[in-house]
Amino acid sequence: LSPFFHCLQGEKNNGYEVLYQNMKYGLSATKELAEYFRERSNLEEYNSKLLTKLANKAGSSGGGTFSPLWIILKSTTERLSELHAQKVQKLTELVKNVTKYAEDLHKKHKSVKEEESGTQDAVQAMKESTAAVAKAKDTHNARLQEVEKARKDNSAKEIEKSEAKLRKHQDDYKALVEKHNIIKQEFEKKMTITCRRFQEMEEAHLKQMKEFLSSYMDIVQNNFDLVGQVHSDLKRQFLELTVDKLLEQFVLNKYTGLEKPGK
Amino acid sequence: LSPFFHCLQGEKNNGYEVLYQNMKYGLSATKELAEYFRERSNLEEYNSKLLTKLANKAGSSGGGTFSPLWIILKSTTERLSELHAQKVQKLTELVKNVTKYAEDLHKKHKSVKEEESGTQDAVQAMKESTAAVAKAKDTHNARLQEVEKARKDNSAKEIEKSEAKLRKHQDDYKALVEKHNIIKQEFEKKMTITCRRFQEMEEAHLKQMKEFLSSYMDIVQNNFDLVGQVHSDLKRQFLELTVDKLLEQFVLNKYTGLEKPGK
Repeated sequence: LSPFFHCLQGEKNNGYEVLYQNMKYGLSATKELAEYFRERSNLEEYNSKLLTKLANKAGSSGGGTFSPLWIILKSTTERLSELHAQKVQKLTELVKNVTKYAEDLHKKHKSVKEEESGTQDAVQAMKESTAAVAKAKDTHNARLQEVEKARKDNSAKEIEKSEAKLRKHQDDYKALVEKHNIIKQEFEKKMTITCRRFQEMEEAHLKQMKEFLSSYMDIVQNNFDLVGQVHSDLKRQFLELTVDKLLEQFVLNKYTGLEKPGK
Repeated sequence: LSPFFHCLQGEKNNGYEVLYQNMKYGLSATKELAEYFRERSNLEEYNSKLLTKLANKAGSSGGGTFSPLWIILKSTTERLSELHAQKVQKLTELVKNVTKYAEDLHKKHKSVKEEESGTQDAVQAMKESTAAVAKAKDTHNARLQEVEKARKDNSAKEIEKSEAKLRKHQDDYKALVEKHNIIKQEFEKKMTITCRRFQEMEEAHLKQMKEFLSSYMDIVQNNFDLVGQVHSDLKRQFLELTVDKLLEQFVLNKYTGLEKPGK
């Protein structure tokens, strides 16, 4: 487990917010994926219905030499409609699984927020302490400048006064930094654990999402292969029905006796 | 050229009607095929539009580790939409060609009807003559029965009378059969030419129809192969985007500095 997430702390210590926000994005992405699959499924259903309608109409203009070709076009259209319907069935199952997962994920996220309250507190303390140290540093610099200015002016009274102010602040500053180091240690300890946890959750989540996508691609690919079979069957039947064969079949159907004409 | 159509004369000499009707079926089939292609094209257009809509929506829920997968899903959806649109374009061209052919065929059929009026007359004459011969044959049989009955009754007067009637009818019958043979010869001569013509027309028509179907299957197959390419590209990209890679990309995007946390 390489703790990628650990380097997300940044200067503003907002790593926790980034990770928490990403976790929430994970739920949105899950819902959106379910919706994407659902709409693809709806499109398949539309195709299936329209192809059935088309199959029912195919060749309705009646007899003639072309009839055997209509028969294979009609059955091809029916088979394609059936394949779209099969895809709908499998996608519906997939959408159900993704939706169920999204519900579970939502519950999990709620408990994560509760369980990570200690880290949230440490983040808050770290932010406040960091700000306080920065402010103390600024004050320290200002005090230093006052001492320098007094020395330049060569005023013994001002030098003594400003040096006293500097020394007094240095004690406060030192105490603050010591306190900050403790807060920082606690923060780093907590964040290391939290980052690891978020990363493990994220890895499990992405693994699951990739499995959903993988199932989707399998459904699409299997269906695609079956459609390819329908196409090659159509091609084979089409080549078998030569012009001579079509004429023969027509004559056989219309055949009203082998007698010589005009008997 | 094997004259299949020649054996369509049948007992009722209705071969011409069968051939003429089939020729008209050919026009209906052409129009129906154009309509079938048009509706398949409309379905492709619907697919293209809906997939564009879906592509625009894909991944709109924003950032997160799953984003790179949304990007490939989005571009896959766009490419599929584009392929459906290409199919529409090619099918529209095909429908135009079939429709143009149907118009030409309609004109051709009109001239055939005019040009075959001689054969139609011969068919009519043949039908009438055949009926007259059949009727004369019935009368001949009735006369024969009358002679037999008179002989059975042993009435010399009736025998002579019925035999005279029979002889008189035999002369008419013979004349009718001789006339019929001439009509029949003319009919057969004309029908042989007409059958050959209808057959040639039908062969050319079926060849053309098969070419349309062949173009259709090529459009479908080429498009299908390109869709297969999109699927395998998606699969490849999907496999490249491992969970580790997704985490890395996310960290790189969110990366706010390589500093140790809490600096």
